[in-house]
Amino acid sequence: MTILISGDKMTIDKILLDHGSGGKLSHKLISEILVPIFDNPILSSMDDGAVFEIPKGKMAFSTDTYVVDPIFFPGGDIGELAVNGTVNDIAMCGASPVYLSAGLIIEEGFSIHDLEKILKTMEKAARKAKVYIVTGDTKVVPKGAADKIFINTSGIGMIYDKADTASSNAKPGDKIIISGTMADHGITILTQREGMKFDTSIKSDTAPLNHVVKNMLTDYPQAVHVLRDPTRGGVGTALNEIAESSKAGIKIYEQRLPVKKEVAGICELLGFDPLYIANEGKFIAVVSPDMADQVLKLIHEDEYGRDACIIGQVTDDHPGRVFMETSIGGTRIVDMLTGEQLPRIC
Amino acid sequence: MTILISGDKMTIDKILLDHGSGGKLSHKLISEILVPIFDNPILSSMDDGAVFEIPKGKMAFSTDTYVVDPIFFPGGDIGELAVNGTVNDIAMCGASPVYLSAGLIIEEGFSIHDLEKILKTMEKAARKAKVYIVTGDTKVVPKGAADKIFINTSGIGMIYDKADTASSNAKPGDKIIISGTMADHGITILTQREGMKFDTSIKSDTAPLNHVVKNMLTDYPQAVHVLRDPTRGGVGTALNEIAESSKAGIKIYEQRLPVKKEVAGICELLGFDPLYIANEGKFIAVVSPDMADQVLKLIHEDEYGRDACIIGQVTDDHPGRVFMETSIGGTRIVDMLTGEQLPRIC
Repeated sequence: MTILISGDKMTIDKILLDHGSGGKLSHKLISEILVPIFDNPILSSMDDGAVFEIPKGKMAFSTDTYVVDPIFFPGGDIGELAVNGTVNDIAMCGASPVYLSAGLIIEEGFSIHDLEKILKTMEKAARKAKVYIVTGDTKVVPKGAADKIFINTSGIGMIYDKADTASSNAKPGDKIIISGTMADHGITILTQREGMKFDTSIKSDTAPLNHVVKNMLTDYPQAVHVLRDPTRGGVGTALNEIAESSKAGIKIYEQRLPVKKEVAGICELLGFDPLYIANEGKFIAVVSPDMADQVLKLIHEDEYGRDACIIGQVTDDHPGRVFMETSIGGTRIVDMLTGEQLPRIC
Repeated sequence: MTILISGDKMTIDKILLDHGSGGKLSHKLISEILVPIFDNPILSSMDDGAVFEIPKGKMAFSTDTYVVDPIFFPGGDIGELAVNGTVNDIAMCGASPVYLSAGLIIEEGFSIHDLEKILKTMEKAARKAKVYIVTGDTKVVPKGAADKIFINTSGIGMIYDKADTASSNAKPGDKIIISGTMADHGITILTQREGMKFDTSIKSDTAPLNHVVKNMLTDYPQAVHVLRDPTRGGVGTALNEIAESSKAGIKIYEQRLPVKKEVAGICELLGFDPLYIANEGKFIAVVSPDMADQVLKLIHEDEYGRDACIIGQVTDDHPGRVFMETSIGGTRIVDMLTGEQLPRIC
């Protein structure tokens, strides 16, 4: 970013408080960096909000704030996470995400180069998910009042015509599908933290899930009863939420739970249970038993669903509880996550 | 908040990292504090997002993050600011705000009592504005990674039928109305900062402007060309944005600019220009000259518009620039704000 000071060009490479003042430098940041990167006609009007036409129907609206540390990690960065996260939350409502907002909190002194890098991955992620970032806000706080950058994304989308998914819709007999391996994101962040040094090829699974959800809800709208992405709290907590909302029991099989070998190794080493580790590109689908194989086949066709498998079923027994048949043949209760495993995971 | 630890009740009065884990304590926070305070059927479903019916039409979507310091100040708090701010941004698009999201970033150790206080003023502000907080997200970051609490609100609303407002719609001859006194919010925050001690009755003007906008756009939809709330950057910057977008000149009169005596006094003492100080409950309307008096009369009827007045007009001359006739009869350019006047004002 170049500014003129008494006729001389001066290049600013750090975010200044003035970038958040609402005045000239804010304008420069918005019109020279943000708007060109997210280039789209709705955003470019630069009014107090975005304005667009919508059809009559059912809308989904979701919000999520990202405070992940470190902000760059194998497989993605905070910007990609922020776009995919809200895209996925809307998809999990049974909707097709369309428009996103981006609210930035930036620490004074943050590198403008890093900011541009993050904004560009946000744009790339939005393009991949086929959504538009149409409105935004930038706040700058003094050094020490925030750590580097936090990003809020909110988004809206239209619910698919015949879709009727909700956490409360699981029915006894329904099959439980997971779209791929567990714990990749959380373990990736963990291995990047200061003091930890693992030489691994593990990377975050951050990915948009709206395209596979679209296929599922277009081809089998009545068969899909629940969609949920097991982010913070992991698969264990998400299953508990479903069991609780649906007032049904859930039984899963330890041997069927997909975990990458390397991820499983680190979990074992550090005493973490992959059932409680965050995922950022996976979903749980609760599906009619008679259609489960067809739905699973459809998920397998998607680039983010190749490792999908059925991990259990909904039961009449023990409403509100999740049970797991362990590898050695026993049965144990899978409770919600208690205690913080790792702060700033997303 | 009370939790059971091995059968003993323990009261937690501070936010712990675990409140943001996505696990049990997160659930407790959401289901025992957040959901009961914002009680509404859409929020209570506790899915990944809110789902609701919408009519066909034009929608406005806006986002804003609040990092104000201090979080409690005369006239309001960060929660009230966050609700009113997004309500107003949507209203400024010519829309009726309906649904809001709330994304919280909380510093570890933050008082749960203060959190409840803030959430309750958010709910009160939402009720006053007649909007619903339907979806949310809570992140907790370790002590020192954020300062107390930051709140993002995003919101949606439907554009009024015949309304056609945009920053680019100002036409030469149009009158410029301001809905009340300038600089109240910014000067209030300033007087609350550490090291400053003013014994004043000044308070923030934070208020919802959607009801008066509704009246204006229902009764005079064609007469209102631009609506803008002069928050960060103040009236001076907002007028510049309008002049720039509309490729028209703007002339205002210093003597007509409404500023409370006490606010003007502090501005003079500290060398601040009220034209650049943030407002949180005021709007600028650019209105057809033939209808300006009727619109002004309507604004006067609203509780937040009693001091509204015409401060100038749009001109053919000097497109993109704002001029002010000063009290002593001279003319000066009113530029956009340059330099940060005060960080964390909103």
